[in-house]
Amino acid sequence: MKRYEKLADQIAALIRSGVLAPGERVPSVRQASRSHGVSPSTVFQAYYLLEDRGLIQARPRSGYFVREHAQRPLPEPDIDTRQAETAEVDVSELVFSVLGSLKDPDTVPFGSAFPSPTLFPLARLARSMAQSLRALAPQAVIADMTEGNPNLRRQIARRYMASGVRLPLDELVISNGAMEALNLCLQCVTAPGDLVAIEAPAFYATLQVLERLKLKAVEIPVHPRDGIDLDRLASGLARLPIKACWFMSSLQNPLGASMSEDKKAALYDLLHQHQVPLIEDDVYAELYFGAQPPRPVKSFDRDGLVMHCGSFSKCLAPGYRVGWVAGGRYAEQISRLRLMTTISPSVPAQAALADYLQHGGFDRHLRKLRHALEAQQGAMLASAARHFPPGTRVTRPAGGYFLWFEFPAQVDSLQLFQLALAQGISLAPGPIFSATRRFGNCARLNHGHPWDARSEQAMAALGRLLAAF
Amino acid sequence: MKRYEKLADQIAALIRSGVLAPGERVPSVRQASRSHGVSPSTVFQAYYLLEDRGLIQARPRSGYFVREHAQRPLPEPDIDTRQAETAEVDVSELVFSVLGSLKDPDTVPFGSAFPSPTLFPLARLARSMAQSLRALAPQAVIADMTEGNPNLRRQIARRYMASGVRLPLDELVISNGAMEALNLCLQCVTAPGDLVAIEAPAFYATLQVLERLKLKAVEIPVHPRDGIDLDRLASGLARLPIKACWFMSSLQNPLGASMSEDKKAALYDLLHQHQVPLIEDDVYAELYFGAQPPRPVKSFDRDGLVMHCGSFSKCLAPGYRVGWVAGGRYAEQISRLRLMTTISPSVPAQAALADYLQHGGFDRHLRKLRHALEAQQGAMLASAARHFPPGTRVTRPAGGYFLWFEFPAQVDSLQLFQLALAQGISLAPGPIFSATRRFGNCARLNHGHPWDARSEQAMAALGRLLAAF
Repeated sequence: MKRYEKLADQIAALIRSGVLAPGERVPSVRQASRSHGVSPSTVFQAYYLLEDRGLIQARPRSGYFVREHAQRPLPEPDIDTRQAETAEVDVSELVFSVLGSLKDPDTVPFGSAFPSPTLFPLARLARSMAQSLRALAPQAVIADMTEGNPNLRRQIARRYMASGVRLPLDELVISNGAMEALNLCLQCVTAPGDLVAIEAPAFYATLQVLERLKLKAVEIPVHPRDGIDLDRLASGLARLPIKACWFMSSLQNPLGASMSEDKKAALYDLLHQHQVPLIEDDVYAELYFGAQPPRPVKSFDRDGLVMHCGSFSKCLAPGYRVGWVAGGRYAEQISRLRLMTTISPSVPAQAALADYLQHGGFDRHLRKLRHALEAQQGAMLASAARHFPPGTRVTRPAGGYFLWFEFPAQVDSLQLFQLALAQGISLAPGPIFSATRRFGNCARLNHGHPWDARSEQAMAALGRLLAAF
Repeated sequence: MKRYEKLADQIAALIRSGVLAPGERVPSVRQASRSHGVSPSTVFQAYYLLEDRGLIQARPRSGYFVREHAQRPLPEPDIDTRQAETAEVDVSELVFSVLGSLKDPDTVPFGSAFPSPTLFPLARLARSMAQSLRALAPQAVIADMTEGNPNLRRQIARRYMASGVRLPLDELVISNGAMEALNLCLQCVTAPGDLVAIEAPAFYATLQVLERLKLKAVEIPVHPRDGIDLDRLASGLARLPIKACWFMSSLQNPLGASMSEDKKAALYDLLHQHQVPLIEDDVYAELYFGAQPPRPVKSFDRDGLVMHCGSFSKCLAPGYRVGWVAGGRYAEQISRLRLMTTISPSVPAQAALADYLQHGGFDRHLRKLRHALEAQQGAMLASAARHFPPGTRVTRPAGGYFLWFEFPAQVDSLQLFQLALAQGISLAPGPIFSATRRFGNCARLNHGHPWDARSEQAMAALGRLLAAF
């Protein structure tokens, strides 16, 4: 982490905590240079970065000012801690009807699960594809199916190493996106009828997978800022025969919550004590704002209890369908399951990603992507503050491209979804994130697309619909 | 089908049935031209084709002669009709130990499941990949995940149309290879504990999938020439609550059996009467010898009872992992299951195949591939006749790249597998093709690799091992 990045993070923290208020002037370069003991050019670099991240803006001849949306414009949602205990899952139909709504390319994609493809280096990836196919030996086209592309495996293991996780190569199983990895992990450690602890609200695909595999959900409440309620998890583990946990410890979908490192360590100790495996869904890991990556629970894993699932679909190459799992003690079993279900992820896609990771400038792309997403988050927050009715609450995740809105109690988000769709606007209504169809007055909105006049109009339209409830 | 292809097929049939014996002189061009009522140049073209297919060879200044291996050099295997009724499946460990043996690239790959990658137009495919990625709109990278590449879907549907099957586009689900399609089909129509009719011997992955999904097998004997025993199937369907059938109606793996059209029609009527769905695994469909493609059971399907699974992995692009299913009445359910398990096959791989199918010369490649496989089959048959002990029997499939050997009763093919592996030769021992570990004196050998001195030496080495039993 470079000096100017550290400084930018310090100032971002001051802005977020309200010490520097929206509209307020940021200390001058000379002041900041003195008070932080850094050179003026470091301050300049930090201010450029904060501008890029959408937190401050320059006014001609007056210096830098905190942007209006840089601080929380709306309060944080309440945590819903109603106890549901275990639940049969039956949400697939509802999810498919929402997903179906996204097919029209003219719809404003607030309900989408992906960021805009224009944010990805698709042309550079295509070059890596051409390059790697030229270099691929014919034998590898078949050999790489069982083992995975060896260079891709190395490149992924290196990124783990850089983030402080030592990963033996044979723990790594390449998969058809993270979704396949998560499915295989769950099948590895459960049988139909078993209990699985999941988050509430949870990523809707988690619910669909549980439904498909005839597993029962134990819903653990998630706090919008620091993640799952450990006490509730502890009491669940003590009383119920929970066979596995499926959690997103960083940038949880849909809340954007990230657990602190201490909490992650405590979670690991708790699971270790009960010998319950953790399926750690970490597909947003690379989309953190600021300069420091979040540390996965996997980094605390002493004896292979954590299956850490990652993917390139959200940060680099949607549609390539390449993910992986660092499978701990379950790696071989996962790999065999994959051979029996899809045999292998696409060999050309693996080769292209391996070449890109080695030569394409992945870290440079990621910095740009993170800044774009952070700036777009600011734009959506500001727009929501302008258009949404009083009583609306919203999360403020430290990464990713989702905001979770809690609307006044009388709002029915399934009805809102239908009304908005009729106006060409999609959104992800709260109940699809719950085995027990809670969060009826909530919705997840995607800010992964470049913000423009159409986005602003769509927010205004949603505001009008909300006001009518 | 062109006139010279028809003539070649007629002469091939004469050779196969023994009317023209090995070593015998084929009628001169003038004779053939007269007796078949075609021009001399058509005869020449037919003879060139038969030469290419490895059935006849020219001797300087003497004309064309039937090659020594062109007729069945060894008798056909016996059909094993011992009744096993239903069986729990537990064969995975054994299969994985065999598959593990294939990892060493220096092993003679008689045990492999794939033909040699050198037989595929990999460079041309790479050009199609580059071309299609240039043309792919960024939005398609995400949109194609739910719907599949629209051009690929059209190209596949057109190939069905050309072979006489009218396929509504929305019946078509693109999958991560045929293996995923087969898995999804089976999950669609069964629940754990259900009975599924499969072939005996069956493709070992069929057994693994049944084991994984906790399904029970009803084994239906397969005749080496004309496929499953319909009477046994009928009696099974009458007595047992069979939920689905999983059959390969053409070029069955491992026997290479192909059912006649009449038998396929009768099979469909039987299943229709019981309303039991058929999962038709047709991944070798394109590898028929001769000029006429086999017709799938799907072509008789009047009301969506057949799920017809195909793939490019065995005929064009191994490692790309693109297959499909024409899912009949189950198509939407299959598509949803796929969304919940792997979301989508790789979008670049789909785009590359779509471009290749449209512009790459697929049919030309297929003709070349079929001739190569047929010639290699001849070479392996001739080599087996030279080196394997008396009492050995072997299939003579009309396509594909597998031969099924039945050795004298005292041969233990699992032991043979170990002994051969110690000499750097792999093979697929009979028991991995059976839920009840039958076929202990049988083995499947792959002739999908260009025949060379090493292949010949390996056959001689196997012959010595066989003789020692």
